[in-house]
Parts: sequence; C-alpha cells; structure tokens
Amino acid sequence: MRDFSRDHRWLSINTATVRKNRGAEQPLTAIIEACAKRGIRAISTWRDQVAAAGLPVISKLVKDHALELSGYCRGGMFPAFDAAGIKAAHDDNRRAVDEACELNAACLVLVVGALPGALAGKAIHKDIALSRTQVSDGIAELLEYSKANRMPLAIEPLHPMYAADRACINTMEQALDICDALDPGRSGALGVAVDVYHVWWDPKLEAQIQRAGRERLMAFHVCDWLTPTTDLLNDRGMMGDGVIDIPKIRGWMEDQGFAGYSEVEIFSSGNWWQRESAEVLDTCIARHRSAV
Amino acid sequence: MRDFSRDHRWLSINTATVRKNRGAEQPLTAIIEACAKRGIRAISTWRDQVAAAGLPVISKLVKDHALELSGYCRGGMFPAFDAAGIKAAHDDNRRAVDEACELNAACLVLVVGALPGALAGKAIHKDIALSRTQVSDGIAELLEYSKANRMPLAIEPLHPMYAADRACINTMEQALDICDALDPGRSGALGVAVDVYHVWWDPKLEAQIQRAGRERLMAFHVCDWLTPTTDLLNDRGMMGDGVIDIPKIRGWMEDQGFAGYSEVEIFSSGNWWQRESAEVLDTCIARHRSAV
Repeated sequence: MRDFSRDHRWLSINTATVRKNRGAEQPLTAIIEACAKRGIRAISTWRDQVAAAGLPVISKLVKDHALELSGYCRGGMFPAFDAAGIKAAHDDNRRAVDEACELNAACLVLVVGALPGALAGKAIHKDIALSRTQVSDGIAELLEYSKANRMPLAIEPLHPMYAADRACINTMEQALDICDALDPGRSGALGVAVDVYHVWWDPKLEAQIQRAGRERLMAFHVCDWLTPTTDLLNDRGMMGDGVIDIPKIRGWMEDQGFAGYSEVEIFSSGNWWQRESAEVLDTCIARHRSAV
Repeated sequence: MRDFSRDHRWLSINTATVRKNRGAEQPLTAIIEACAKRGIRAISTWRDQVAAAGLPVISKLVKDHALELSGYCRGGMFPAFDAAGIKAAHDDNRRAVDEACELNAACLVLVVGALPGALAGKAIHKDIALSRTQVSDGIAELLEYSKANRMPLAIEPLHPMYAADRACINTMEQALDICDALDPGRSGALGVAVDVYHVWWDPKLEAQIQRAGRERLMAFHVCDWLTPTTDLLNDRGMMGDGVIDIPKIRGWMEDQGFAGYSEVEIFSSGNWWQRESAEVLDTCIARHRSAV
C-alpha cells in the first residue's frame, strides 16, 4: 500500500469541495490556480463549473498547469418518462463524453439517475426496476460512443438513501453486474467509481472490490460519514472526522492494483463551504496524509 | 394476495406512530384506547412507552381489548466497547424477551446496534466488521434464552444510512446469512422484520424475501420514503405519500405465505407527530386500505 504520509502526490481535489468560498460561489479558474499553487497534481471538475468558465478556458488552464483529471463529473441520469426524455439524456451524455475527452479525463463518472421526477419531489412512477432497466440500456448505448472516443465510463454506485432521486445503482455488486453484462471482456471501457461515502457500510464491499479487479476500479473518492449526519446530501465530513476506515478501503483497492488518485469530494453546506477555501484545501492536504 | 381495500383487519399500529399528539408525548394507555375504539386489532409497542405506563397496566389493557401484538420494540444494541457493556446489553435483552412474553408478542424485533458510541456522536472505533461479529455472537447467545421462552427473534435490517449508529445489519441478505448460520433448521425461532422503509431500494429484495420463506418472515412494517427526505430519522412518510411500491412488496411477502399484520411505523417529527393523533390513526386506516 502506498505511503501517503509524506506528500500529496496522489491527492486529487474534486472541485465541488471548494466550489464555495465563505459561502459564495467561486469560479473554477480560481480553484484551479489555488490547487496548482499547492502542488496538487489532479482535480476532478463538474460540468456546470466548466460551462460557467468556458470549456476552452479550462482546457487551456489545465494544460498550462499540467494537471491531470482523475475524473469528470458527470454523465448519467438515464431514466426518463418518455422516448424524448431518454434521447435528450443520451445526447447530453455524448456531450459529456466529448468534454471529458477535451479535458483528457481518466474517466467519465456516471451518476445514473433514478425515478423520473423524484429529484423535483414529484416522482412520475414508483417502478425502480424499470428505472434500473433504463439505466442499463442507457449505459449500453453510451458505451458505443465512449469506446469510439476512448473515454472510460465509471459507474458510481450511490448510497441507498439516493435510490429514489439520484441513482438507482446502489451497491458495488449491482454496478459490477452491469459491467459484466455489458463488457464481459473487461476491456477497460467500463468500470466503477468507488466513493467511500456511498459504499463504506456494505458488508460485501471487500469481496466486490476483489471481484472488480484492476480493470474496473477507475476512481477512488474520499470524504467521511459524520455522526450525526444532519442532511442527506450536503453534510459530508472531512476525512478523519467521521467513522469510515478509509485506509482499510484504500488498501483493498490497492491490493487489486489500483494506483490512481484519492479524490476528495466533500459537499458541506453548513461547514466546509462556509470556510475560506484556502483553509479547506490545506486541510485536504493534511488529512490526505493523516487519514487516507 | 389479501384484499385490504374493504377493512382494516390486518392493520397494526406501531405506537411510535402516535406517540405524540400535537407534539406532546401521549401515554400508551390513551393510544391503546384510541386504537381499540377504531377496531384496530393489533399494535406494536416500544419498551419505553410500556415502562412509562407500567407493564402490568399495559398487559391487562391489551388483554381486556383482546389486542394482538404484531411485535415488541425492541431488543438488540449488542455491540459494546468491553465485556461489561456486552453483558449489560445481554441482560437488558433478556428482560426485553420477558416483557415480550408477558405481552404475548408475535416476536421481539431486534435493532442490532452498530459502532459503540456513534449514537452519541463519539464512535469508539471504526471497525464495523467487529461490530457485526458482536451482533452475530449476541444474537446467538440471546437465542438460547428466547427459544427457551418461545419468543421468536426478528432481526430488522436497517437502512444503510443507519449503519454507523443504529444497526450494522443493513440488508435482507446479511440478516438471512445470520439466520442460516444460527438456525439452519428454520425452527421459527429466528427470522426477519421486513420494513419497507429500510429495504425498498434493495435490488435483491424480491430474491431475498423468497429465500427467507414463510418461517423467517416474521413482521412487515410500512410507511413511505419521501422525496425529498429532510431528516435521516424522523421524516418518514404516510403510505401513499412517497415512492415505495408497498403493494408489490407485500405481494412478495404473501407469495411466501406471510399472512400477518401490516404494521404502520412512522417517525415524523415535522408532520404527523404535530397533528391530532386521532387524525393520524384515521389516516392510517384509510391508507392501509388504499396504499398498502
């Protein structure tokens, strides 16, 4: 297992972690400059942040600083009420692949979607099995395009508390079943993003990481689970402040040959987003060394 | 599948659902009278509510009204930091069995516990595998006592969002693995309580209900998953107000021969606990007919 205690060579910052500075939205250009200044060598960005700054601007800035992208957030949201909705999602996902290619991302992360309308509080139906079929079909279709463009797709199983509104793929086992069905040859075109926040509770986690193996382990996201957790979405903790044994899970990943970045992704409306983003980045570096 | 649309013969009220009347704690005696008055034939009570009223008082009242107990809440909380903590939990669980016997409950529901200290916000360690071993050991030990007293134990898998602080048994598969290990003969002494709130998201739910079979399906709890959910513990919805396809899950239970009560268990600090409990009970009866 790699020793992270001496440097932050393998730290990546998901830019959502510092999207706010003292509560105010912060431009992606400023985030990138702040990361580069600290010797952070990788980031992962969100599409809306890139769009706000302009893709060419971000593409140039990333190249100028020789930054790597440990992932691009995000494609997915496949389920829809009708054929037009399915097609709109597919078109948007192809654009996400194009952007990920332009930024030379390691993978496009897929948050797959769930019950149509649920995110707005008005689910159109309750048939989660139907949504799961639409997800599998959607990934199959997108995979043709992403393969042609050599952009790996990383399915991110989301915590079961998001099953209604954000992602109906909720365990590693479920994600890997899709990988096995759509890419039985383990080509490297399809895999999983392992976010400790979503999967730490799973009694089958170690076994499923072993099952995934090197070809399917495409990203490793870290933060922490707080007790109590006061908000289902935006109360993630800094590594070391919660109950997740992160080094143990990283060890399982590395036992399979994973040698990529540990990407810090913290949504924290009440705490970290209220602080100076400089303090947040410095804390990420320190905790990467001590708690990841 | 039984037709619930015409009466509420198979409705049980978990007394937590109406533990508050317009926000004020309500005595269990008043809850029981209100249920009996409406022709509700079963309840499930919590130990603290029984203790506040006095076990002999509640026992007599239940008998006077010929009420059945679809379950008794709860035993469990097995993990502890040291041997004294483990022993204290065991002693308390034996008392819970005794109380369940006195009330002639169908089963003692087990909320198994998780990381010691986490419920108070100070987890003593992060080793969830250790907690899971302590849970399995604890159930094994309690099973000897409960069998001797002919009180079935029903393991309730809790939603993964409670894995840190309330229960580290989080899927039906995991609960049934314990049942298979400790009671391979399917004696009827050990099984599961299926609460749709905790398990609705699980892609393996139907298969695991089939695996459980009649002997292990000891209780069926209903409420609904709201979108958005604003609190991890106390924002459960009334049946029909959320995204869970409850009749589908009940159908899976009944296909295995389950013929017991549908127990309504709603924790709702912001909504239902703020209303007149008479309105809540009447709504439970109506929704039992239309949405369960």
